[in-house]
Amino acid sequence: MSVEARQTIRSGDLADTMLAMGRRARAAARVLARADARTKDGALAAMAAAIRRDAPAILAANTRDLEAAQARGTAGSFLDRLKLDPSRIEAMAKGVEEIAALPDPVGTVIAEWDRPNGLHIERVRTPLGVIGVIFESRPNVTADAGALCLKAGNAVILRPGSESAGSARAIHACLAEGLAAAGLPADAIQIVPTTDRAAVGAMLGGLDGAIDVIVPRGGRSLVERVQGEARVPVFAHLEGICHVYLHAPANLDMARRIVVNAKMRRTGICGAAETLLVDRALAATHLPPILADLIAVGCEVRGDAETQAADPRVVAAGEADYGKEFLDAIIAVKVVDGLEAAIEHIERYGSSHTEAIVTDDQAAADRFFALVDSAILLHNASTQFADGGEFGMGAEIGIATGRMHARGPVGVEQLTSFKYRVRGSGQTRP
Amino acid sequence: MSVEARQTIRSGDLADTMLAMGRRARAAARVLARADARTKDGALAAMAAAIRRDAPAILAANTRDLEAAQARGTAGSFLDRLKLDPSRIEAMAKGVEEIAALPDPVGTVIAEWDRPNGLHIERVRTPLGVIGVIFESRPNVTADAGALCLKAGNAVILRPGSESAGSARAIHACLAEGLAAAGLPADAIQIVPTTDRAAVGAMLGGLDGAIDVIVPRGGRSLVERVQGEARVPVFAHLEGICHVYLHAPANLDMARRIVVNAKMRRTGICGAAETLLVDRALAATHLPPILADLIAVGCEVRGDAETQAADPRVVAAGEADYGKEFLDAIIAVKVVDGLEAAIEHIERYGSSHTEAIVTDDQAAADRFFALVDSAILLHNASTQFADGGEFGMGAEIGIATGRMHARGPVGVEQLTSFKYRVRGSGQTRP
Repeated sequence: MSVEARQTIRSGDLADTMLAMGRRARAAARVLARADARTKDGALAAMAAAIRRDAPAILAANTRDLEAAQARGTAGSFLDRLKLDPSRIEAMAKGVEEIAALPDPVGTVIAEWDRPNGLHIERVRTPLGVIGVIFESRPNVTADAGALCLKAGNAVILRPGSESAGSARAIHACLAEGLAAAGLPADAIQIVPTTDRAAVGAMLGGLDGAIDVIVPRGGRSLVERVQGEARVPVFAHLEGICHVYLHAPANLDMARRIVVNAKMRRTGICGAAETLLVDRALAATHLPPILADLIAVGCEVRGDAETQAADPRVVAAGEADYGKEFLDAIIAVKVVDGLEAAIEHIERYGSSHTEAIVTDDQAAADRFFALVDSAILLHNASTQFADGGEFGMGAEIGIATGRMHARGPVGVEQLTSFKYRVRGSGQTRP
Repeated sequence: MSVEARQTIRSGDLADTMLAMGRRARAAARVLARADARTKDGALAAMAAAIRRDAPAILAANTRDLEAAQARGTAGSFLDRLKLDPSRIEAMAKGVEEIAALPDPVGTVIAEWDRPNGLHIERVRTPLGVIGVIFESRPNVTADAGALCLKAGNAVILRPGSESAGSARAIHACLAEGLAAAGLPADAIQIVPTTDRAAVGAMLGGLDGAIDVIVPRGGRSLVERVQGEARVPVFAHLEGICHVYLHAPANLDMARRIVVNAKMRRTGICGAAETLLVDRALAATHLPPILADLIAVGCEVRGDAETQAADPRVVAAGEADYGKEFLDAIIAVKVVDGLEAAIEHIERYGSSHTEAIVTDDQAAADRFFALVDSAILLHNASTQFADGGEFGMGAEIGIATGRMHARGPVGVEQLTSFKYRVRGSGQTRP
């Protein structure tokens, strides 16, 4: 048999394997949709316990993943995301317990009203169905996504990157144990058994209608591929080009604290600020101390001529620096002519993720809130709050910038759909 | 120049035309997103007035559409949907006024909560963006869809079927007049200027990201094509295979009224019942009078052996009669062994649209509500209430059976997205 013929058979096998996973996920989703809160929460508690107990095995698998990645010369930031340690494993177990502690969204009445004919209408949450999660380096996505999907009554198919597959499988074994302990189907949380990239393509095709939504977790190139090729809805953001805008009058101390936090608390997260816009009226008073603060904590500042005039250490910004997701200790700064100019800049260069305005002018903040169409807008607070946990959602499976179904942090509620329950007493339509 | 070369140029022209419509719609959507309620409602009032004033012109265009359709030998049911008369035009104008009277969804706070750190978080409605509506015979979709999209702050691109295009254009002229009167951009409601079917393909491709969601309104083949080919989300239902299930104990009078209404009030709408399921415990008492009622009003009954035993006029049902959308005075009837058997039948043959249970057993109704995953479930009421107007939504652009974003009747609220507004007092993330 020729190599080509074998390859064809192999990819045929993979396609069959993936379709079968889809069918099993759909069957499991039907069981999950009927599972009560106690059963689901029991499974989650057992998962957390198994993760804690298996920490040594998970760490050993992670070490093998890390060594293999290092041998391939993988970048340091990638290795940092891949690396687990006892505290990260404890955080993972705790995260699963926190999801267990959330109220069960399934069956919750979102809205209800009465009709003049006596019909009582309720809109109630239901599970979405089957979620496909495609991720890269972070092994903890296994536990976060598995737990969130289960809580919302959804089955999930997890596809870890080849670099994190060993760690992900070790964590998945703990999730499977939790499902079994609660008597829930093993197919509720499946992990793709191969690192063949064709599996991603199969998932993006929807597995013959078995996958309802895809959530990519990873770098820009992964999200771009998923958004471009997926035949099913996608919850994702391509980039987090977050802006902080200082509008006069703005409290200087507050502005200093917020800018440094928004940029520098963690530079690698999607809610990190990438561009600072400053009203011309504040250039003389606010820019010098804020630029000094940023530079003092190791941030490179790239600015327009007026920003450069405020501090000689500011590098000249090129056009490409605005709208760039640095994900690093670099910030682009620009002086603008007031609110409308700031909004125009954000519309042109932003990514509809998260923007903050710092001002004492409530009317300006309201206008900023009304006119900027980003998923998250903040007034007098750091963009680093763009996070499901910080929103009180317990956890998030990602942040979405699309306008369909989910937007902003995607937590258990965003992983549900709804149906209508209508109660009558014999009503017929005239 | 060869015929083929000319064809290529022509379809290139059409592609450019459609892409330009998409860009203009996107630009108009940005203006609409900022339009206040008074402006939008003023436009709607002017549209309703123009529709009433132009009734003779609309009727004349409709007569030309009807004559052309008749000349092509179009089916009677299609002609009935296509035909306008003064009362249908008045209903259209009134529908636009009712939409104007609805509260503006844009800016409505859907949820709000406080965080321990003092942040106040609001989830507020925003427009979805640009809606593509592809319809067939009913000219009133022009006004309904145009008005609903405008109310929700969305731009819309309307693509009527070739049979209804003249009527749709006459109605569209009235909508354009309303937009102009209120100073809103004409591109807020565009109508595709050609009946070339390639325009549908272009819309399904999303017009280079300009269309956010497609709503098909028409027969099964249209919806099937849209669902199969669309590269953007679709709000639709393929079929309305609605079930009425009689569970013992069930009030006989109520059951008789509901079954006849659900099947026969209007047989051609998606909320019409297509299958009746009856508990074996009710076969002797309930089936004979209900079958007699149905047959008396001209309904053909196709049943299993037990249904046939209850009335000699019942025709033998074939397997294909269950799960069939008759859209006619025909009903399939089956005797089942209780609640679980009924639910299994609905899961196997249903279309996740609308199902009703008639019973005096509240626990059984609750279980039916919990286990059946259809967009609309009713207890002791007719399936013909599956309608946005009947739900109190004012109007609907369609009914969706998918689980993403919109489900059930799609009204102004379902045509919105949301964003988060977070108000702080200088909070930074630790």
